[in-house]
Amino acid sequence: MDAPVDLAVADLHPAVDDPALNSMNFLNEVAQHWPDAVSLAAGRPYEEFFDDDAPRRWLERFRRHLVEDLGQSPAQAQRTLFQYGRTKGIVHHLVARNLSVDEGVHVDPEAVVVTVGCQEAMFLVLRALRAGPRDVLLAVAPTYVGLTGAARLVDLPVRPVAGGPAGVDLADLREQARRARDDGLRPRACYVMPDFANPSGASIGLADRRRLLDLAAEEELLLIEDNPYGLFPAGDQGRLPTLKALDTRRRVVYLGSFAKTVLPGARVGYVVADQRVAGADGGVGLLADQLAKIKSMVTVNTSALAQAVIGGALLEHDCSLVTANVRERAAYARNMRHLLAGLARRFPPPSPVTWTAPAGGFFVVVTVPFRVDDALLRRSAEEYGVLWTPMAHFYDDRTPVDALRLSVSAVTPEQIDLGLDRLAALVADELDRAPAPAR
Amino acid sequence: MDAPVDLAVADLHPAVDDPALNSMNFLNEVAQHWPDAVSLAAGRPYEEFFDDDAPRRWLERFRRHLVEDLGQSPAQAQRTLFQYGRTKGIVHHLVARNLSVDEGVHVDPEAVVVTVGCQEAMFLVLRALRAGPRDVLLAVAPTYVGLTGAARLVDLPVRPVAGGPAGVDLADLREQARRARDDGLRPRACYVMPDFANPSGASIGLADRRRLLDLAAEEELLLIEDNPYGLFPAGDQGRLPTLKALDTRRRVVYLGSFAKTVLPGARVGYVVADQRVAGADGGVGLLADQLAKIKSMVTVNTSALAQAVIGGALLEHDCSLVTANVRERAAYARNMRHLLAGLARRFPPPSPVTWTAPAGGFFVVVTVPFRVDDALLRRSAEEYGVLWTPMAHFYDDRTPVDALRLSVSAVTPEQIDLGLDRLAALVADELDRAPAPAR
Repeated sequence: MDAPVDLAVADLHPAVDDPALNSMNFLNEVAQHWPDAVSLAAGRPYEEFFDDDAPRRWLERFRRHLVEDLGQSPAQAQRTLFQYGRTKGIVHHLVARNLSVDEGVHVDPEAVVVTVGCQEAMFLVLRALRAGPRDVLLAVAPTYVGLTGAARLVDLPVRPVAGGPAGVDLADLREQARRARDDGLRPRACYVMPDFANPSGASIGLADRRRLLDLAAEEELLLIEDNPYGLFPAGDQGRLPTLKALDTRRRVVYLGSFAKTVLPGARVGYVVADQRVAGADGGVGLLADQLAKIKSMVTVNTSALAQAVIGGALLEHDCSLVTANVRERAAYARNMRHLLAGLARRFPPPSPVTWTAPAGGFFVVVTVPFRVDDALLRRSAEEYGVLWTPMAHFYDDRTPVDALRLSVSAVTPEQIDLGLDRLAALVADELDRAPAPAR
Repeated sequence: MDAPVDLAVADLHPAVDDPALNSMNFLNEVAQHWPDAVSLAAGRPYEEFFDDDAPRRWLERFRRHLVEDLGQSPAQAQRTLFQYGRTKGIVHHLVARNLSVDEGVHVDPEAVVVTVGCQEAMFLVLRALRAGPRDVLLAVAPTYVGLTGAARLVDLPVRPVAGGPAGVDLADLREQARRARDDGLRPRACYVMPDFANPSGASIGLADRRRLLDLAAEEELLLIEDNPYGLFPAGDQGRLPTLKALDTRRRVVYLGSFAKTVLPGARVGYVVADQRVAGADGGVGLLADQLAKIKSMVTVNTSALAQAVIGGALLEHDCSLVTANVRERAAYARNMRHLLAGLARRFPPPSPVTWTAPAGGFFVVVTVPFRVDDALLRRSAEEYGVLWTPMAHFYDDRTPVDALRLSVSAVTPEQIDLGLDRLAALVADELDRAPAPAR
């Protein structure tokens, strides 16, 4: 291109040149550039059970619900689906029912804001909580890059809290909250994924969940609980109650996604924000209503057609996603076991390669004795035909991390085998190439 | 409620207590509280031609397009519709074709970002352009409240530019740009709706469009052209070329919406951003790609299912929305003529009531010789059964404006008659109640 330039990146909001935003782009580019590589990178849901006819069927099911259960006339139902609509959404009552059925979480449907995927839910919460330049967010590290990126967009600094094998280091959380206050800052909330976290795979135990809630109350922090993977335990140990289920003091803002449990193509998620907010006029309302005001200026409302698809899927299974995902849950659990067994077979002890053994979810973290960076990922894609995610992308300070994330969600056992063979070849060549550095 | 309060509005981003964000809420509340009132307030599209079967049919049409025209396998097509997808969208090529067919605007499909309605497009552009505290936005007044609200969310001050009957006062635009610079600020862009603007109904003539483009180049401003109503001229004078069609210097960022031309319930809009942006690394890319990075942290991508519905609607009419909206265009034109004739009949000269006579679009502004405020709207709803929009909502400084906006888009001629009868009764009672103030 030889036409003149119109703008410089430096003339745009600094977020556009931020590693958090470029990271997503880079990973997508690699995947697009090597479409035939086996992808142990993608966190997409499993496709085997997708049904071409489902969107039509679910839309129809939800339309019937509007007429038969909610008493709308056919004309009103058409308006609900086709026109502009309620900012907080039209499937909020089904979301509340789902939380009650699957999670034992009982919330006022008015405290639910249906969003354009969980990403918009994060964005709305962070936009609301960033009142001024003293506000900071704490986030358990390693952190989902979508959270870090959304924080960048609202100029909200993120301070990491150690995660560790227990899912969150409570002493470090207290320490970081106090340190922030000592620095003249106001820590507003801590972002945490208590179940099979992305990317660490770690889960927080029941006793620590209760301690975390106590600590949040003591330190006057909100907890932003993100729970995209909670439905997918890999073993027989069952599921733990969410923070929101244990939350008796309204410290938890709960983020939900239907991308992994119904369809990513609908882009429907939600936030439960039942916190009571005092207005300047003395009135008291729900945080959900403040988030809705922000949403009205970001996306107006979530696509009614997309919501209807999700609503119909919920109705088809009496609002239980546990029931709706019987086959998917089995596939993820099978894949997780297959990946862990495959790693054990390829890297038998004593091996310098180690990995986590998550109790569920999509992700395993593999630690290796050599530098893992974007250049290595490119070489892995080009020369070995296998994709994974460098763990450095999930740390905000971009210090090198000699680990990579493997995902089991969008592959078959055969693809896992092929991907692990290729990964093992890469690892062997890297180990040959340079001796492990003294550590 | 007697439970304790968890937060105060003062602890949240100031936008949540801003008039621009509360305004939308207030107007929705009034409409919900008096659902049986005749609404000359709603800017929703006309419903008579909605077809329950259309979403299914359009989705199917787009799926066929993926397979037959783009060569995707059935499995790939399913993935395109059901999975996470391209940040910039999957109907970008059809948007580009539509712009070529209907507007004579020829853009690289890569310069198109498909968004969650036009609102997200606005939000992305303003977020990108607000690089720091010196940046300000100019906007033709009166201004669509969604623009003002989005600007609040990114802490971008908006300075009004006089609109007037010509649609934009070019001398005032130059003056405001220079005054901003004199104040040490950096005016980034001017927001303008050149065709049948919301709320003024005004349009910019062809000569002024060319002058506006020259002025933008001279003052180094971008023009943010918002064009939701351009397809709906009321008379026989035809349509003028958009600013983007006349834009030879890439000064125009073009915002489009399918809410008025296909379906609001899909929530699909787009932005054309073909400006060339120099990166820190010396590379040059499109502004669209910078906007996409921001989008990836706001909504990830626009619902593929919603995009497919819009894509199918475009394909069904060879990408011409002019063709697709033959009946709707006639209905809006008929309603506009009916409203203007109805006003002339009810307020014959000499009358203290005056109104605009727009050449198309949805909106007429009626000026009256008494105070028009939210309290009057409430009384109009409760006692007279007619809804309209106080023009003060479209002025950022909230000075009283003795005018109201009437919309013809979501009503029948019979409803227009009924609404105008009720409005005339309100006006008569207000004129009786207090003599017109000296002006």
